[in-house]
Amino acid sequence: MDSRTDLPVVGMVGGGQLARMTHQAAIALGQSLRVLAESPNDGAALVAADTVIGHHTDLEALRDFAKGCDVVTFDHEHVPGDHIRTLLAEGVNVAPSADALRFAQDKRAMRERLAELGVPVPAWRPVASVEDVAAFANSLGAQSVIVKAVTGGYDGRGVWVIDDPAQVAPLLADGLTLIAEERVPLRRELAALVARSPFGQVATYPVVETVQRNGICVEVLAPAPDLDDEQAVAAQRLAIGLATELDVVGLLAVELFERDDGALLVNELAMRPHNSGHWTIEGARTSQFEQHLRAVLDYPLGDTSLAAPVVVMANVLGGQTGGMGIDERLHHLFAADPGARVHLYGKQVRPGRKIGHVTVLGDDVAQLRIRAAAAVRWLTDDALVSAESADNPDDALVSAESADSTEGRR
Amino acid sequence: MDSRTDLPVVGMVGGGQLARMTHQAAIALGQSLRVLAESPNDGAALVAADTVIGHHTDLEALRDFAKGCDVVTFDHEHVPGDHIRTLLAEGVNVAPSADALRFAQDKRAMRERLAELGVPVPAWRPVASVEDVAAFANSLGAQSVIVKAVTGGYDGRGVWVIDDPAQVAPLLADGLTLIAEERVPLRRELAALVARSPFGQVATYPVVETVQRNGICVEVLAPAPDLDDEQAVAAQRLAIGLATELDVVGLLAVELFERDDGALLVNELAMRPHNSGHWTIEGARTSQFEQHLRAVLDYPLGDTSLAAPVVVMANVLGGQTGGMGIDERLHHLFAADPGARVHLYGKQVRPGRKIGHVTVLGDDVAQLRIRAAAAVRWLTDDALVSAESADNPDDALVSAESADSTEGRR
Repeated sequence: MDSRTDLPVVGMVGGGQLARMTHQAAIALGQSLRVLAESPNDGAALVAADTVIGHHTDLEALRDFAKGCDVVTFDHEHVPGDHIRTLLAEGVNVAPSADALRFAQDKRAMRERLAELGVPVPAWRPVASVEDVAAFANSLGAQSVIVKAVTGGYDGRGVWVIDDPAQVAPLLADGLTLIAEERVPLRRELAALVARSPFGQVATYPVVETVQRNGICVEVLAPAPDLDDEQAVAAQRLAIGLATELDVVGLLAVELFERDDGALLVNELAMRPHNSGHWTIEGARTSQFEQHLRAVLDYPLGDTSLAAPVVVMANVLGGQTGGMGIDERLHHLFAADPGARVHLYGKQVRPGRKIGHVTVLGDDVAQLRIRAAAAVRWLTDDALVSAESADNPDDALVSAESADSTEGRR
Repeated sequence: MDSRTDLPVVGMVGGGQLARMTHQAAIALGQSLRVLAESPNDGAALVAADTVIGHHTDLEALRDFAKGCDVVTFDHEHVPGDHIRTLLAEGVNVAPSADALRFAQDKRAMRERLAELGVPVPAWRPVASVEDVAAFANSLGAQSVIVKAVTGGYDGRGVWVIDDPAQVAPLLADGLTLIAEERVPLRRELAALVARSPFGQVATYPVVETVQRNGICVEVLAPAPDLDDEQAVAAQRLAIGLATELDVVGLLAVELFERDDGALLVNELAMRPHNSGHWTIEGARTSQFEQHLRAVLDYPLGDTSLAAPVVVMANVLGGQTGGMGIDERLHHLFAADPGARVHLYGKQVRPGRKIGHVTVLGDDVAQLRIRAAAAVRWLTDDALVSAESADNPDDALVSAESADSTEGRR
């Protein structure tokens, strides 16, 4: 407890945008998030008063950080399980625990555990050689397979599409532990987000569709359009079941494939606030960030219902640098769309880097996708905000629309 | 500009809850609010990374604080106008300017200016003696009048109901400069909130009803129930006109009396985020805190439309200390009402002190008032959360309802 406020102190390991947005939620609850950041320039370190600089693989740094925290939780999956076990053994309250978090850290362990639980996942196999990959592809009768690093991947990193088994040789030479996975013929990707408290209370958010580009989530549609109630409930029950079986405390994001035949397969798990839940800041009555705090603190969970019929979130990825600055871009966007909700993470712009997101709320998913795409282009695309099109914002909407329809829905 | 983010730095003088909530809004815009706080335990200082400790009456502290700020703005009205003029003369961008802010700092100057503009205010007169008060009461044919300190009052402080003119003698002996004002026979109090940018763009929020108890705002109903469109538009136009005439940059809150005959009179002005706008955090598409930042930065202003048909905000005033702690109270509230949106300011509980607020959204103002009142009682009232009533949360709702109906609507 913080003696100045008589309210708990939550420590979050990692100083990225998830910690940054969790701090915003902590402020409303009367708290101030304690952040373990690698650098004072990390997104959360820029804004949180109680920031400690240290590395998440440094046990001493973790020990010092944990002192005075009512609970320690995570902005990412990269804290070594042994360190978490040591903290737990020393009496630190860590949520999720090492035993739960393992299934978000280790893609192989997750698939093995899900198989035990009878939860459908894509066909997969551990692979330790080019021959293993060839044999796996052969068993599927497939030209190409997906290969994933068992640990450490995110945002498309640590994932490769392999058309020729020989392509894995350099990955193995780098010492990576790999699994191979079938390329699922899929209709789309979905995500089911659930929070679970130590008491065992669970609260699920509406199931969303996540749109990926180059392995990175670029857009989230809430609720998932045209998902029938039965499927939605099945996805939510799956998430609740996994959170309970794996004894997750905090948020669990279940990334799902909706196969062409309608079956749902689990792709990945994350045990923290998740990009697929950023829409909840304005789009749900309780944001995922507040919900994560409530869950790890064993507070009763908040209302997860939608704040509007449809909510669309789009990520802002850094464009070419050297053009118009982000501040000027923001002016243009705010002039073009006074209702767009912008979240910037305090990051320097680098091409392809997630620097923020935009959320729009309304009734019509097609229109909202156009608005969200236009907003993202205002923040990233120099061509769009050239003198000519800046004079005519309608151009932006048209080009956003045609870009969307060219790309299709997968 | 912050060289780490290429985004502007807004400095706010004062470290209270308004700065605390403005910091939350700044985070979304990629910024980190720079706060000049009196103490490291101030609500905003507890949560903002870029806090400077110093006093708002210390010109050197203000000068140092302003360095590197793109704009300096205020959490309260107490910065001496001469200091602001000095900063402006030295090239600091201050919003609102000293000339505008004067009308929120000096109740007499405000009334004189409003008279020039032909804006209706309650009958008033400067008073410098017991005889002046007696003469003023006599001129109204009134038994009692209101006396206000010209500067420095807030939340009911600096305002007295005078039944006997002799009561002002000790106030005058304390050296206060006073005005006397008629007690307006009023139906209710309203507030009109408008933002204005240096460019001159304005954006008005829906007009709200503010419910006062002992001179402190305890509840805000958005939009004001049963306010006809013509009155609402008149109040908004009044706020826009005042913001423009007074050259306000940032937010202007116009506190209004709705007289029994339906006329609107201006009660007070504030040029900063205002308690009557806290409902906008969840209840409007753009919160007043983000809007204030957008206005002082000359960003295009955000959408002010309602996020739900009805929004009710209730202030949480500290109850008796020594009973149940705020953390346990929060558990009970969250269990009783998962949809209640809570904002705690990081303050130690003291009887009567504003320690937070609660917002509820829905369709029915009467039901929402009951919910908001119950939520406030969970956070403050020991009697309510005794073993007996805690077992039966319905009791809370009943007692909240009866308390409300006893008190009436004024």
